[in-house]
Amino acid sequence: MKRNMKVSTAVIRRLPRYYRHLSELQEAGTVRISSSALGKSMGLTASQIRQDLFCFGEFGQQGYGYKVDSLKEEIGEILGISRGHTVIVLGTGNLGRAIIHNFRFSANGFQLLAAFDVNPQVAGTRVGGVPVWHTDRLEEFLAAHPVSVGMLTVPIAAAQEMGDRLVNAGVKGIWNFTNREISFDQKDVVVESVHFSDSLLALSYMISQREDRSRREGEEPQL
Amino acid sequence: MKRNMKVSTAVIRRLPRYYRHLSELQEAGTVRISSSALGKSMGLTASQIRQDLFCFGEFGQQGYGYKVDSLKEEIGEILGISRGHTVIVLGTGNLGRAIIHNFRFSANGFQLLAAFDVNPQVAGTRVGGVPVWHTDRLEEFLAAHPVSVGMLTVPIAAAQEMGDRLVNAGVKGIWNFTNREISFDQKDVVVESVHFSDSLLALSYMISQREDRSRREGEEPQL
Repeated sequence: MKRNMKVSTAVIRRLPRYYRHLSELQEAGTVRISSSALGKSMGLTASQIRQDLFCFGEFGQQGYGYKVDSLKEEIGEILGISRGHTVIVLGTGNLGRAIIHNFRFSANGFQLLAAFDVNPQVAGTRVGGVPVWHTDRLEEFLAAHPVSVGMLTVPIAAAQEMGDRLVNAGVKGIWNFTNREISFDQKDVVVESVHFSDSLLALSYMISQREDRSRREGEEPQL
Repeated sequence: MKRNMKVSTAVIRRLPRYYRHLSELQEAGTVRISSSALGKSMGLTASQIRQDLFCFGEFGQQGYGYKVDSLKEEIGEILGISRGHTVIVLGTGNLGRAIIHNFRFSANGFQLLAAFDVNPQVAGTRVGGVPVWHTDRLEEFLAAHPVSVGMLTVPIAAAQEMGDRLVNAGVKGIWNFTNREISFDQKDVVVESVHFSDSLLALSYMISQREDRSRREGEEPQL
């Protein structure tokens, strides 16, 4: 199924979006979709979609489009959804809690094993059904449970230190929500940072462009 | 300063990252940086950086690199940071609260005016110093205050409805955290969605690739 070619970062970044759109199509009961219809819903051209998917093998049939469920399943395989990945959450403040309560880890192929917090009042409780351990016991936990990803929702000042503890205990994936860049000497560690500011600033740019356009067109911005 | 050329989505997406990295360099006391050093810290090539910045005008001097503070300021201008944008938060659950408490709106050029919630027990209180209004009074508030961006941290089922109310009252920017795709007939409305799953699935892909590589190299995955 997989070709042995180097896949660009841009394609890798689009794969989860394909997966998400195909999941929505599946939930809506769509059985088949053409590359142009899929492209339209994702803001891509049909040829872009054919090129992207060609990186990974033969999907779909000329003139018949893609079967939504099998394309979703194959992309899920590529993304590693059925590999039994596991995740722990470090930091059960508002953000940690929001994600524990609302994020569908299992729909993304992850089993949420535990959360950790430095607050002794929180340790020993459960958040959204997930046991909370004291952070002092992180290494003890990691020695007993294989963890693919450590999610960091700790305060900024603790980001690198907690990341180091995860990596030193063998965790290879860090999902970083702290808005602090962190890095590791170990080359086989992957850090994925979620920067809310990047998203808001992109939005700021886009609305600023629209404001300028309204102004150039001599209109008052429509209210 | 600005050239009148069409800027690609990829470049627009990188601009906030430039801004963020330059802010960090500035905080660290760095005065000048070469395109290759800036590129290294961002995972881009020097020539990619020169090309990106060329879209917007002449920055830096051949052989002298970029002045961190002035490049940061100019990119901030392009992003619209000094335009006095305003934002309101819809939904003060865990995620809304986490962002109100921890996200530096002002550092990104946004003034956070108010939050809204359907819970009558929360309306009338303050969260992180920000007044919370009852959602029933959204239109009243919007009639009196110009709002650039409405941030949606409401439950999924309320996403489109609350988005429609914002857009019908003239809000042009929607920052959508609901993990539900929303869309509007009005062409001048910009929706920026934050999908945590896209980020986790990209991480899943990257750790899966590393797992395969370790296996191919005949090693046990290092623990």
